[in-house]
Amino acid sequence: MSPTPMKLLTVVAEAALERRLTADLAALGARGWTIVEAHGHGRHGDADGDMLGGGNIRMEVVAPPAVVDAVVTHLRDVYFEHWGMIVFTHDVDVVRSEKFKG
Amino acid sequence: MSPTPMKLLTVVAEAALERRLTADLAALGARGWTIVEAHGHGRHGDADGDMLGGGNIRMEVVAPPAVVDAVVTHLRDVYFEHWGMIVFTHDVDVVRSEKFKG
Amino acid sequence: MSPTPMKLLTVVAEAALERRLTADLAALGARGWTIVEAHGHGRHGDADGDMLGGGNIRMEVVAPPAVVDAVVTHLRDVYFEHWGMIVFTHDVDVVRSEKFKG
Repeated sequence: MSPTPMKLLTVVAEAALERRLTADLAALGARGWTIVEAHGHGRHGDADGDMLGGGNIRMEVVAPPAVVDAVVTHLRDVYFEHWGMIVFTHDVDVVRSEKFKG
Repeated sequence: MSPTPMKLLTVVAEAALERRLTADLAALGARGWTIVEAHGHGRHGDADGDMLGGGNIRMEVVAPPAVVDAVVTHLRDVYFEHWGMIVFTHDVDVVRSEKFKG
Repeated sequence: MSPTPMKLLTVVAEAALERRLTADLAALGARGWTIVEAHGHGRHGDADGDMLGGGNIRMEVVAPPAVVDAVVTHLRDVYFEHWGMIVFTHDVDVVRSEKFKG
């Protein structure tokens, strides 16, 4: 057992943004992400009257803290003013093989 | 980067409960939630012989601790005796815009 | 409110592995799991050139630390060399009924 401390970033956004967001992730150094279809309801960010209704995606990215920080700053600067988006992070222990640990 | 500490509440329940649960969430002060379709298996709560099989939902709610506590108490008091339900919480850092931070 | 500290294990894997993985979970003492369909992208484990593309599952297991440790060791020993797989854990507070707490 050699868990590696990393950050998990979760982003809930409109499904229409998927291609833009995954391109952003790759450009900012994330090496992988997981996406599930979601629906829900919410008011978030500056666009306080916006509703996150049907047709959302829930993206998860496991990455080192510096990569997650860069993605978070980018999301806030580029999307928060005009798009409803839920963004949160927390620490996780990532399981790697012995060979690639460290 | 101005993360706001909040609680993430995750609830796995039968899909048939979705409308009741989202009404409960709104009534108890949650401002948003994210739902994905799920399936699985489990025995939980008092209904120890119940199975959570196909046709489930996985709901996430990000909210202040007091709101999450109220929802948790409500779920336990109203649903646990008769419904299979998985409920857990953990801390998250929520990313807000600079304008709305604090 | 009597939360029980447990571990949440998240596994993202090819959907073709679902039956094998749930059999492993049951054999190693997990009493329940939640599965959602997912897609994504990633390079993980020893199979560094492998891509986790479409047709994935995201499995969650809430269990005591000893059970999660056993599952993690098994996944690493059996799957990591030949399958792309994302595996991470973190602590959660599980809500149980008063009757079954402890």
